[in-house]
Amino acid sequence: LQVTVLSCISEAKPHLLDNHTVIVIDVLRATSNMITAMMYGCKEIVPLESIEAVKKLSASGDLLGGERNCQKIVGFDFGNSPFEYMTRRVEGKRLWMTTTNGTRIIQRASQANHVLASAFLNARACAAAAYELNLNICILCSGTNDIFSWEDGLCAGLLVDELRKLKEEQLAINDFGLCMHTSYLQVASNLTQALLQSANGKKLTHLEFEDDIAYCAKVNITDTVPSLFEGTLIPYRSKTGCPS
Amino acid sequence: LQVTVLSCISEAKPHLLDNHTVIVIDVLRATSNMITAMMYGCKEIVPLESIEAVKKLSASGDLLGGERNCQKIVGFDFGNSPFEYMTRRVEGKRLWMTTTNGTRIIQRASQANHVLASAFLNARACAAAAYELNLNICILCSGTNDIFSWEDGLCAGLLVDELRKLKEEQLAINDFGLCMHTSYLQVASNLTQALLQSANGKKLTHLEFEDDIAYCAKVNITDTVPSLFEGTLIPYRSKTGCPS
Repeated sequence: LQVTVLSCISEAKPHLLDNHTVIVIDVLRATSNMITAMMYGCKEIVPLESIEAVKKLSASGDLLGGERNCQKIVGFDFGNSPFEYMTRRVEGKRLWMTTTNGTRIIQRASQANHVLASAFLNARACAAAAYELNLNICILCSGTNDIFSWEDGLCAGLLVDELRKLKEEQLAINDFGLCMHTSYLQVASNLTQALLQSANGKKLTHLEFEDDIAYCAKVNITDTVPSLFEGTLIPYRSKTGCPS
Repeated sequence: LQVTVLSCISEAKPHLLDNHTVIVIDVLRATSNMITAMMYGCKEIVPLESIEAVKKLSASGDLLGGERNCQKIVGFDFGNSPFEYMTRRVEGKRLWMTTTNGTRIIQRASQANHVLASAFLNARACAAAAYELNLNICILCSGTNDIFSWEDGLCAGLLVDELRKLKEEQLAINDFGLCMHTSYLQVASNLTQALLQSANGKKLTHLEFEDDIAYCAKVNITDTVPSLFEGTLIPYRSKTGCPS
């Protein structure tokens, strides 16, 4: 089983998507939000790149969420803080989301055979799902405007760690994946502190979203894995009935 | 003091070279060889991209070194193993070098104010030289054909570690640099083992260059720092008379 970790969207070449299960990561905060919304019963999430498309395609009763420059979009139900999605309002609903990097990466990955959304919150379950899907795995960090973001790399390192635990024989991991794994192991005992040191961590702290960082640094608190099906993220259902 | 670590040559945009001291790294094996040749008295090293240019521009009495696909070039004095450069033959001589990635990166970096060549062998001295030059620092991993190589990232992490020791106040380190630093710290106690796991480590092991890897993993064994001056690498001379 080959595991290829990529540092940002621009590295996602077609040969790393075709015949692959792609795991997309945007820890601060798009994929953390998607997972959180599904933990609270959200039925499906439609990731779109443009605000206009969200407004045009969404139906009455749907919910709209997302951000531009870390801030809520005018007329939307939710911004980009995971705490906003911890509500019964999302239960059974369709949620349309657009964020600067996180939704773009899902669109980019959509030609892969399977696309799963991961963050620290669901890493173990996501690794189990990817393992079950039985294709080579590409772990795609979203980064920020095509520049590597450490928090995404650390989550990739955790995924590598979980995959190694699942797979007894040696995985073939690319150099970038080995590097992310060792970086993760070095800071695993204090992930929040590491995230606070990252560029996005500093930016969100400045914008008074420090609690978001502490929440997004929680590891393996849910078995919920958003999985792309015909352009829409739905909760992954394990073939064996056991999500993790 | 800003420290920006870049994962491969293609990330070296002009604004990260102008007004910067650039430290180039190609641990396996170009910069390790350059440092080794200077440890043995080599007077100057001319890095060039093409074999033809080396043959055309070199003079009688000069030495020629380098590789294509990890192998010695026909008609050259030396290949790409550091052990070849541990000889009195290099003393006082001009050496022309061409390698797949390592010389290309120096050409790419040449528009920076200062260019220093680093590997594990001279990291502390190189960090001291860069610190003394008193500009923002860009640490440029050469990688392999525009893909990240872990051994170069680990050396960048060691350089960050040495810079932090030199500089009491907080350095501003980019996310990729923080990541390389933590990856380095995780494997610092057994660098050779880490290098053997990297893609280039495996490739060189397959080609029976395993001893090269063990040598290139030695940390801070020399104060010699190749420094680019008008297209030629010469030993860096500290302004204070103390190289490290």
